[in-house]
Amino acid sequence: MHLSEVTHPNQLHGLSIHQLKQIARQIREKHLQTVATSGGHLGPGLGVVELTLGLYQTLDLDRDKVIWDVGHQAYPHKLITGRYSRFHTLRQKDGVAGYLKRCENKFDHFGAGHASTSISAALGMALARDMKGDNFKVVAVIGDGAMTGGMALEAINHAGHLPKTNLLVVLNDNEMSISPNVGAIPRYLNKMRLSPPVQFITDNLEEQFKHLPFVGDSFSPELARIKEGMKRLAVPKVGAVFEELGFTYMGPVDGHNLEELIATFKEAHQHSGPVLVHVATVKGKGYELAEQDQVGYHAQSPFNLATGKPIPSNKPKPPAYSKVFAHTLVKLAENNPKIVGITAAMATGTGLDKLHAKLPKQYIDVGIAEQHAVTLAAGLTCEGIRPVVAIYSTFLQRAFDQIIHDVCIQNLPVFFCMDRAGIVGADGPTHQGMYDISYLRCIPNMVLMAPKDEAELQQMLVTGINYTDGPIALRYPRGNGYGVPLMEEGWEGLPIGKAEILRQGDDVLILGYGSMVYPSMQAAEILSEYGIEATVINARFAKPLDTELILPLAKQIGRVVTLEEGCIMGGFGSAVVESLMDNDVVVPVKRIGVPDILVDHAEPKESFAQLGLTPPQIAERVRNAFFSKQPSVVS
Amino acid sequence: MHLSEVTHPNQLHGLSIHQLKQIARQIREKHLQTVATSGGHLGPGLGVVELTLGLYQTLDLDRDKVIWDVGHQAYPHKLITGRYSRFHTLRQKDGVAGYLKRCENKFDHFGAGHASTSISAALGMALARDMKGDNFKVVAVIGDGAMTGGMALEAINHAGHLPKTNLLVVLNDNEMSISPNVGAIPRYLNKMRLSPPVQFITDNLEEQFKHLPFVGDSFSPELARIKEGMKRLAVPKVGAVFEELGFTYMGPVDGHNLEELIATFKEAHQHSGPVLVHVATVKGKGYELAEQDQVGYHAQSPFNLATGKPIPSNKPKPPAYSKVFAHTLVKLAENNPKIVGITAAMATGTGLDKLHAKLPKQYIDVGIAEQHAVTLAAGLTCEGIRPVVAIYSTFLQRAFDQIIHDVCIQNLPVFFCMDRAGIVGADGPTHQGMYDISYLRCIPNMVLMAPKDEAELQQMLVTGINYTDGPIALRYPRGNGYGVPLMEEGWEGLPIGKAEILRQGDDVLILGYGSMVYPSMQAAEILSEYGIEATVINARFAKPLDTELILPLAKQIGRVVTLEEGCIMGGFGSAVVESLMDNDVVVPVKRIGVPDILVDHAEPKESFAQLGLTPPQIAERVRNAFFSKQPSVVS
Repeated sequence: MHLSEVTHPNQLHGLSIHQLKQIARQIREKHLQTVATSGGHLGPGLGVVELTLGLYQTLDLDRDKVIWDVGHQAYPHKLITGRYSRFHTLRQKDGVAGYLKRCENKFDHFGAGHASTSISAALGMALARDMKGDNFKVVAVIGDGAMTGGMALEAINHAGHLPKTNLLVVLNDNEMSISPNVGAIPRYLNKMRLSPPVQFITDNLEEQFKHLPFVGDSFSPELARIKEGMKRLAVPKVGAVFEELGFTYMGPVDGHNLEELIATFKEAHQHSGPVLVHVATVKGKGYELAEQDQVGYHAQSPFNLATGKPIPSNKPKPPAYSKVFAHTLVKLAENNPKIVGITAAMATGTGLDKLHAKLPKQYIDVGIAEQHAVTLAAGLTCEGIRPVVAIYSTFLQRAFDQIIHDVCIQNLPVFFCMDRAGIVGADGPTHQGMYDISYLRCIPNMVLMAPKDEAELQQMLVTGINYTDGPIALRYPRGNGYGVPLMEEGWEGLPIGKAEILRQGDDVLILGYGSMVYPSMQAAEILSEYGIEATVINARFAKPLDTELILPLAKQIGRVVTLEEGCIMGGFGSAVVESLMDNDVVVPVKRIGVPDILVDHAEPKESFAQLGLTPPQIAERVRNAFFSKQPSVVS
Repeated sequence: MHLSEVTHPNQLHGLSIHQLKQIARQIREKHLQTVATSGGHLGPGLGVVELTLGLYQTLDLDRDKVIWDVGHQAYPHKLITGRYSRFHTLRQKDGVAGYLKRCENKFDHFGAGHASTSISAALGMALARDMKGDNFKVVAVIGDGAMTGGMALEAINHAGHLPKTNLLVVLNDNEMSISPNVGAIPRYLNKMRLSPPVQFITDNLEEQFKHLPFVGDSFSPELARIKEGMKRLAVPKVGAVFEELGFTYMGPVDGHNLEELIATFKEAHQHSGPVLVHVATVKGKGYELAEQDQVGYHAQSPFNLATGKPIPSNKPKPPAYSKVFAHTLVKLAENNPKIVGITAAMATGTGLDKLHAKLPKQYIDVGIAEQHAVTLAAGLTCEGIRPVVAIYSTFLQRAFDQIIHDVCIQNLPVFFCMDRAGIVGADGPTHQGMYDISYLRCIPNMVLMAPKDEAELQQMLVTGINYTDGPIALRYPRGNGYGVPLMEEGWEGLPIGKAEILRQGDDVLILGYGSMVYPSMQAAEILSEYGIEATVINARFAKPLDTELILPLAKQIGRVVTLEEGCIMGGFGSAVVESLMDNDVVVPVKRIGVPDILVDHAEPKESFAQLGLTPPQIAERVRNAFFSKQPSVVS
């Protein structure tokens, strides 16, 4: 059987270990080819090929449910659940998603994108199953990185207290998040992997057993079972933490040995109550370059399979915002030892790895633990440290209460730097940075800013560092800047709450925020071709708004347009409308941004076009709103 | 020395154990008297009198910092840090706060109100201390209930990984949150408290040692140290979980034995790296009624100290919203076995204890774990269960990402019931339910509703249960309803997104949301006395808005007022303004609600008056906005 013929995972049930290994090889081939061509997550999926096949061999996927954490390691799962033929569309518009979506496939029982959710969701299904008197199996597959997220630990605490609720947690321990893991839990897991008895057994037992006449070197689930038993006898303390918390612990299992995996999962299904199977895997397994550079090959843009080198783009690109952020932060931190960069397992994505390399004492990675990151930062400020919390917009959602309760209520000067604010492209709805303006704007004491380009990002970094009156947040987009000259010195920072006039005209007032300032200017130029002259303002701050500048202009011009790369429910445009109304400036306002919908995965430029956010579309929407009675072609 | 003379905790340093016991007695007396008179938290503080005194004996409070989790157990701390003479003002406007606030006292190093934050904040301070080359002690005091919150576990994971960072975590194990604790971690702690060797030592060792000539029955820190050593020898596995996670574990210590506490804390300070001292306390210690009914005496309204009975109020009150909610939910659940109520350690506050008593199989308490509660609920819906997640508005903030990522993006029909939405009174800024309209409104697929009174709360409960198209959230205030007749049967639920006209008039359109509908009507009556006739609408839904009803009326009347008990940044009023603008109805709108400030603790009626939200104030604000040029007396 070839992988391409597999449309239902139960088809694999009859296969021999040898045949499964062939399927494993085909999964890796397809996986590698696809990611090399389209880009996507590489290491996570390659590491769980055998785990997926071994687990699915022991389940009836028509009844049993597997909940994958995060979802970026579920490519093998996708390839054996009917998505092989469409897999080349991975992460492309209308193609196979890079994460998991319930609406994409009936075997995707719970969507994912953020970490640490799977045990909670699986436990919910298991409890529902028991209420209904049903008896299918529920399995959560979670990484060791995701296990440090507080929510996963909350779920462990709950599940461990329910001895009658059958639940299997498969801990995929590859010793990594995107970067090497942080914390006592990963260290504990690592200790188990490396404890001498386990190592001894893993290294020697199989070899020795092969010489026994009743075992031989044939495939032997019995051998695997005996090994597991020996291991637990030899190292009674292995898994003590999980055992004390109410789980039956099994492992560590070699995550690339199908026999051992199948035997262990079969045994796990015999236990009642919560069971944890600890599987030791190698991120990037089967692609040597990825095994050697697990951080670098976590996720990839298109690359050459033979060399591992990224395929060079046709034209040189301006620097990414992340890169400018990191470069500037390092520069500032070199001159100010009180600056500390904090990341929650996003060192490479945020660029803080540069800070780590240069100034390791001014760098803290807390692991996947956004809540802790924020309150830790609040604690640091109490002692005069200037924490820069670099967390993507979408992940900062996880620390919302900490931002309110520990930072804003106490008015502590934590500086939030939100990368990936706005459209994120191929990562899709779970990762869109849509809500930060709305969810941060409603909190007292918060200051919100966004730069028009990468040079202003630098200025705003300085502004945030210098601002010690309370919390301040900076949002900037995924992707590249405009190639404007970067500033090297002499920065004073920007005055808080002050906007900038970029263009003057009498017909319409366009207020752009952050990444929409340049499109505002471009739209204004198009409008000018129609004889419509716009005043364009770079708002810089969504809170406090520069009402001194905006209100008189709005009153005078009488037509206002707001532009933002974020949800318009409660966002920057709402701030403008609220402010106008509060000050009795009753003029029409057209708010342009992301409407109240989920934005699917696609190229960013495709999303922008879909949302009517390209400069020509903006110009047309402004004309339709104020200068014509014809209905708009973009809604 | 009398407690009233203690203005700095270091004053207690020279006291003998006997004298400290006197201070302890005086703390309990003052604590009991104050709470009996003013209301407040009773059991938590009484349980930590000796813990506080013992810990502070071993610290230099001019340098060392103690971070209290939650803060409601910090009354003893308050009484020895200069607040004795003002303690009778507890939880009253401008009086001593019920929780902790940095601005109240220099010994309140980190504010608190929500659970599980102390270790993160303390670790931040400890890391800052080390960066600065300082060497003061940092101590977090956290309850066993708070320890199940994911954030605390994230902090443990981080701290346990930092062997060079001195940090003392004092685990105040009273076996309770507000209700008995849930989960494997509390069970594990309990096992340690009750393991036979520990019990044996605790029961017998001291007695036996007293007969030895070199010990006698005098106070003996040596005895305490020897006991501690013996205990650890006898039960090597005690604390294994914490030890495996990198902490030095000490305990369990009798939390009411000052000698033992002082000796243990002294020893703890000798260790480097993270140390956890496990202290076994009795919630309500020293007040027999509270020891016996730990749930009932967690927090109290004014009561008779001798009988423990609440002091009856002068007039009968209408039923509380919580009570109507619980009563109605039980009724609905009796007829629908798919309904499951979920609480995060708030059984009594939300009224879900009634569901627990009546239909235990349709009730889940996950402990202090809001994130897990929400995603668990999402998992339940995947199997056709109807989860009703009953979490206060302020605590639901902690599950913001789960609401977006696990519920709304997947459009799963989780029903959120947010008690304490709006002004909460004496609990103060950390507990105000101000932000829910803003932070939920920006998420696609979410439906938001709020009832005008307790009968409509019942209708909305039915509405939420019947609504299976996606997530839906109901907010209702703390406190009592209006005494309107409750419905007993025949409910059909309300149409989604439909408002109700309550009064008609041509001069101004008042849109009230939830608890502000009755005040809207009362304000309209006052306006009528001035010849101003208002149309009043009970909006019922903040999302989707009933634009069909609202837009034509707004256009026709030309003056709009919105009223909500929540922050007006991005709230209900913003929804109205956005909607009017989007539909080219450009009319003035006066948004009335909670401005962009923190609302301090006070009687709710005092807060309403301060915020200009009483009916006469509303009427005046409307007159000033639209019917007079005179400046408003309320801003």
